[in-house]
Amino acid sequence: MKLADRVARLGTETAFAVSAEAAAHAAKGNTVYPFHLGDMNLPTPANVQEAAIAAMKDGKTGYCPNGGIPALREALAAETARSHGMDLGADNVAIQPGGKPVIEKFLLALVNPGDEVLYPNPGFPIYESQIEFQGAKAVPYGFVPGEKNFLLDFEAIERSITPNTRAIIFNDLHNPTGAVSPREEIEALAELALKHDLYVLSDEAYWDIRYEGEPLSIASLDGMAERTVILYTFSKKFAMTGWRLGGAVGPADVIGVIATLNVNEESCTNHFVQWAGVEALTGDQSGAQEILRVLRERRDVAVEALNAMPGVSCYSPTATFYLFPDVTGAMERVGAKDYDAFRLGALENTGCSFCTRLHFGRALPGEDRRYVRIAYSGIDADRIEEGLGRLRDWVASA
Amino acid sequence: MKLADRVARLGTETAFAVSAEAAAHAAKGNTVYPFHLGDMNLPTPANVQEAAIAAMKDGKTGYCPNGGIPALREALAAETARSHGMDLGADNVAIQPGGKPVIEKFLLALVNPGDEVLYPNPGFPIYESQIEFQGAKAVPYGFVPGEKNFLLDFEAIERSITPNTRAIIFNDLHNPTGAVSPREEIEALAELALKHDLYVLSDEAYWDIRYEGEPLSIASLDGMAERTVILYTFSKKFAMTGWRLGGAVGPADVIGVIATLNVNEESCTNHFVQWAGVEALTGDQSGAQEILRVLRERRDVAVEALNAMPGVSCYSPTATFYLFPDVTGAMERVGAKDYDAFRLGALENTGCSFCTRLHFGRALPGEDRRYVRIAYSGIDADRIEEGLGRLRDWVASA
Repeated sequence: MKLADRVARLGTETAFAVSAEAAAHAAKGNTVYPFHLGDMNLPTPANVQEAAIAAMKDGKTGYCPNGGIPALREALAAETARSHGMDLGADNVAIQPGGKPVIEKFLLALVNPGDEVLYPNPGFPIYESQIEFQGAKAVPYGFVPGEKNFLLDFEAIERSITPNTRAIIFNDLHNPTGAVSPREEIEALAELALKHDLYVLSDEAYWDIRYEGEPLSIASLDGMAERTVILYTFSKKFAMTGWRLGGAVGPADVIGVIATLNVNEESCTNHFVQWAGVEALTGDQSGAQEILRVLRERRDVAVEALNAMPGVSCYSPTATFYLFPDVTGAMERVGAKDYDAFRLGALENTGCSFCTRLHFGRALPGEDRRYVRIAYSGIDADRIEEGLGRLRDWVASA
Repeated sequence: MKLADRVARLGTETAFAVSAEAAAHAAKGNTVYPFHLGDMNLPTPANVQEAAIAAMKDGKTGYCPNGGIPALREALAAETARSHGMDLGADNVAIQPGGKPVIEKFLLALVNPGDEVLYPNPGFPIYESQIEFQGAKAVPYGFVPGEKNFLLDFEAIERSITPNTRAIIFNDLHNPTGAVSPREEIEALAELALKHDLYVLSDEAYWDIRYEGEPLSIASLDGMAERTVILYTFSKKFAMTGWRLGGAVGPADVIGVIATLNVNEESCTNHFVQWAGVEALTGDQSGAQEILRVLRERRDVAVEALNAMPGVSCYSPTATFYLFPDVTGAMERVGAKDYDAFRLGALENTGCSFCTRLHFGRALPGEDRRYVRIAYSGIDADRIEEGLGRLRDWVASA
């Protein structure tokens, strides 16, 4: 069939190809260490599962309101109000089948074709895809190495703002770098948004995967609640990636539009899954605490192993389940002429499968260091140690 | 927040307002007979529920492929191949969170802004909303009363085709009329699509809610498989409206684009719910058969009751769970000056709540008869008899 012109502007997540290559390598009888997954190998807490089953058996199998069941809208408003120090009610929340739909719907609701939208690169690839697919202009901003972690390339952000800039996507607790913005960075970004009248999509997918430090959301700063939509997801905190449950939290007017987009696109989110969401937010939290404990242990193992490799250096991020080591020296050692050569060489020689910087956007001008993303959400600590040990041996012996 | 310009073109399902008014009436202590619902008051078959629970407990709680789990893609391809007499494989299927997403994604994948798309009016209101929201031109076609049911206004369809017409939405087993197209009508429509090089969205949401007669899909006619996308849903056959599970079935190229739209919009459909879908399609069918038996009994009760009212005449459709009686005479009897006066008068005086023709699109030029939609999916047979009895008494005593 002859496709619509806009399809030429549609991107995807190229990381799926990495999964396919890892699966093919495993199918040949090889051991694979899956550092490429953004998925989790941890179970959803039992009380959350039981709440879904109880709701299903109780007949919560019919349609529910397009914006979500009132109990979940209220629970998510209360949870966000508590964690953010904001004043929020049910009409500030539109439940979604995952966090991801908030990206599409924020842009549909607020950005016109031809408008410019700033987005992080490296960053979650759907930002760029959705901005361009909808006919707006995707303007990337990068990161610079800081003392303890990456920092926003703030100069690039300031330089990129034009009269056509309409919005900025900000993913604090950042995929793929694991960076957490210091307070002054968040404050400076808010000041910029206010000065230039920008809307903000605050992608807080990893908000609760935080090992230390006090949380701060850009949405909670003075004057920002009126111009910020928060992307919330149950996926990470409660190991519910495959359940598809999340929400948009923001001003009632734009939330109303997003709820009408729900009517248009998918009617509503699965009814009994929403009751599981109520239990997740308001019930026993020991499951979520255990998930966080396990992830933190894995982080420590992985960071130590990476820094033990010649030609590799890695921050120890205080959040997310990603590491973004600088592998420039290691790539030189093994003679990898480009990212794919390094990635496929590592898979072939060590079984370690990971995504590279290029799975999170095109390289920016002047970018001379090389990075890969090590995800530790889908692999246990002992296998992290084993896999990264093999990777170290391969690099060291080159 | 200042909304994007396109939001002004976004429609919704106005039937939600009818639900709200019915709820308000009930909250005052009144009996309400819910004929407005497109939802079902029947349980999802137990084997389907158990399959979801087993999959959840088996850890099917992580991400799955964006196009759907292979087992479900294969099962839906096999089922559609069987029921349609077509040759289909897994790459002809993209699983969706409901049937509705197929409307949005068909249009995104195949229709450019400015293109014209024919759609049924009266019809499911999301067709018009999505066509216009995406910047195409929505061109309505109506229905004409036939001997046993409504027929497509074929002259209007032919007259409306221009060089800019790109696609036609065809909802055989039609909401709200309950009409099933005779073979010659489907063949004539296919001929028109071939002659004018039109793509077809075949909305088959009610395909299996068929009480008699042999099924025939426009997709199965010569030359049509290459230009038709079928909207499939589990919602009606298996009483799974709130589960949000459906699929797009069509040529592999456009299905590939639709699967990439899944990556962009919602990643994938709930993982364990897809396993429930496999059981629904391949397991014991007695649940679906019982649903059909109950609905057929309700249809007979409702049709008889409607035709017993003065100033009302109603076909007995062979499919769907909707009736679309002509109430022109009844409206005159009770002195209702417009649709809302009739609808609210009926609610106030009898407790019967229903949608009118205007909930399914703007009235077309020359439309002089008045219709309402009586849905019998959400109300038991004895209450249908009681409610419509009250409606009859109200109309008869006027």
